[in-house]
Amino acid sequence: MIIDCHGHYTTEPAPLLKFREQQIAALKDPAQAPSRESLKISDDQIRDSVQNAQMKFQRERGTDVTIFSPRASGMAHHIGTAATSLEWSQICNDLIHRVCLLFPENFIGVCQLPQSPGTSLDNSIRELERCVTQMNFVGCNLNPDPSGGYWNGPPLTDRAWYPFYERMVELDVPAMVHVSSSCNPNFHATGAHYINADTTAFMQFLASNLFSDFPALKFVIPHGGGGVPFHWGRYRGLAQDMKKPPLKELLLNNVYFDTCVYHLPGIELMTKVVPIDNILFASEMIGAVKGIDPETGHNYDDTRRYIDAVSWLSAEDRNKIYEGNARKVYPRINKILASA
Amino acid sequence: MIIDCHGHYTTEPAPLLKFREQQIAALKDPAQAPSRESLKISDDQIRDSVQNAQMKFQRERGTDVTIFSPRASGMAHHIGTAATSLEWSQICNDLIHRVCLLFPENFIGVCQLPQSPGTSLDNSIRELERCVTQMNFVGCNLNPDPSGGYWNGPPLTDRAWYPFYERMVELDVPAMVHVSSSCNPNFHATGAHYINADTTAFMQFLASNLFSDFPALKFVIPHGGGGVPFHWGRYRGLAQDMKKPPLKELLLNNVYFDTCVYHLPGIELMTKVVPIDNILFASEMIGAVKGIDPETGHNYDDTRRYIDAVSWLSAEDRNKIYEGNARKVYPRINKILASA
Repeated sequence: MIIDCHGHYTTEPAPLLKFREQQIAALKDPAQAPSRESLKISDDQIRDSVQNAQMKFQRERGTDVTIFSPRASGMAHHIGTAATSLEWSQICNDLIHRVCLLFPENFIGVCQLPQSPGTSLDNSIRELERCVTQMNFVGCNLNPDPSGGYWNGPPLTDRAWYPFYERMVELDVPAMVHVSSSCNPNFHATGAHYINADTTAFMQFLASNLFSDFPALKFVIPHGGGGVPFHWGRYRGLAQDMKKPPLKELLLNNVYFDTCVYHLPGIELMTKVVPIDNILFASEMIGAVKGIDPETGHNYDDTRRYIDAVSWLSAEDRNKIYEGNARKVYPRINKILASA
Repeated sequence: MIIDCHGHYTTEPAPLLKFREQQIAALKDPAQAPSRESLKISDDQIRDSVQNAQMKFQRERGTDVTIFSPRASGMAHHIGTAATSLEWSQICNDLIHRVCLLFPENFIGVCQLPQSPGTSLDNSIRELERCVTQMNFVGCNLNPDPSGGYWNGPPLTDRAWYPFYERMVELDVPAMVHVSSSCNPNFHATGAHYINADTTAFMQFLASNLFSDFPALKFVIPHGGGGVPFHWGRYRGLAQDMKKPPLKELLLNNVYFDTCVYHLPGIELMTKVVPIDNILFASEMIGAVKGIDPETGHNYDDTRRYIDAVSWLSAEDRNKIYEGNARKVYPRINKILASA
């Protein structure tokens, strides 16, 4: 079985995007506020939105199930108030749930959180509980910078996040550390903000004692861990200069990397330096890079081809990357897969 | 000949650091303002500061000359006013000049710029001119985020930077894109802010038409280009999705990467994906990572060993990385090396 741990609903039915437009317009003109009841999306619209998109790629690439969450760039926690973010997150998560109910063999839900800059995580805790206990979701996307590129909130290792982490551990779900769109003109979203956030989160974890406080807390850092594997020597050396234990001991029971790295040399590097136990298969299709690589004739984001092409991986290694590690990091998927 | 294009004066004599302390204290209490005349550093103090440090490593590692600039984390453009930054930059650059005069075979100067958030680049233009025309400097370190981690200034591709770029082109000097210390608790300086800035700058360049406007403008992106080579497929794909020409055509006549990547697999990746013509040897010693890698028994930042160990590099490739590309990107070093 091949589990893709990183997919977003980037082919949402048009009424959802229309609702969001109205919701944003209402921030300036409350008369335009759409009612939640006005948002109508049929099962057929949902089927149409994924059958010839994500599901087609699953079939073509020979992957089985995608851990699926709302569009990352659409979360936009910097827009509006805590109430804006709560309403938008609930709607997006409900829609993911409907996708998972319609295609239980293809999709397993991960939720967006109603974060909002400068507000507490109470809404996020409640939404995580709702999604996990009522809709069988297996994890969440946690935005380390809800400001959208100004980074004026506390680092992920600050105690402000601890109540959320406590609930994650109780529910036995991991978080993927995933920023949303950037409203800072310095940062292109998928070309800079995403990669920077991944690198930043890893270094925050490295410099902290977070995993002494939460030995069971688990994070997936997407996009191959940003710049981290390329600078693995730097991170080993920084930990050493700080008199920390080796990375494996310091954080690799808690921090995992996905394989959203869109060329073979990158995946090769990753499998050389990051322990195989810490690598989870992912493609983020349909996502940041949609084209076909003229050097290979295949989609850049067809990451399965790269993993299959790494000559030194054993069958056991591949099983871990494709399935075993996801079952370990997202333990709730085991029950879902058994019943699907 | 082996040219290390990225070294900072991280072993400054104590009086310099004392002066800076007083200068910062004077921001709150002007009575503490130190006079520039009070700062006394002897030639012997300068000799002592580098002979058993940078020069010892040059001898041990078999490298020849280091393109040398003030401590990057010391620039701290976010501290004080434009006047603070101007005074501090002039003092730091004058000291680099003295190092270069004492050891002309070992060091060639690159300047710190008196940037200051929200102010024009006039001071930076004047200081660049002074350093290049009066002190034989061959380039500058340009900080893409003088705020120190809040990124509230314009991207490097904004027209606000153009007057500075015009002067760079006239003087025939490149800029290394190099942030300074971070005052944002989200960003560890050498573990996140540096790498993020490298990635960010590359993506700004990729998304822009800057090099149509300045075909002769040259940048070196340090620390191996941040996360860029690891995600080379992503950047090729993003350019393609934006209907831009291939990276080589789009920006590789203008953008170069140094080799401050502290493990062999990282250097191997770089030499696989980045054209050899765009890679400049560098170590940043004595810098971010000072320890010895227990896996190799050598300093993490002894990057020459990694380049020597890449089996597929030809003698011509190594000559380009070690010397030829630096002579091309920093054309003013040719005259200096000829006379040294």
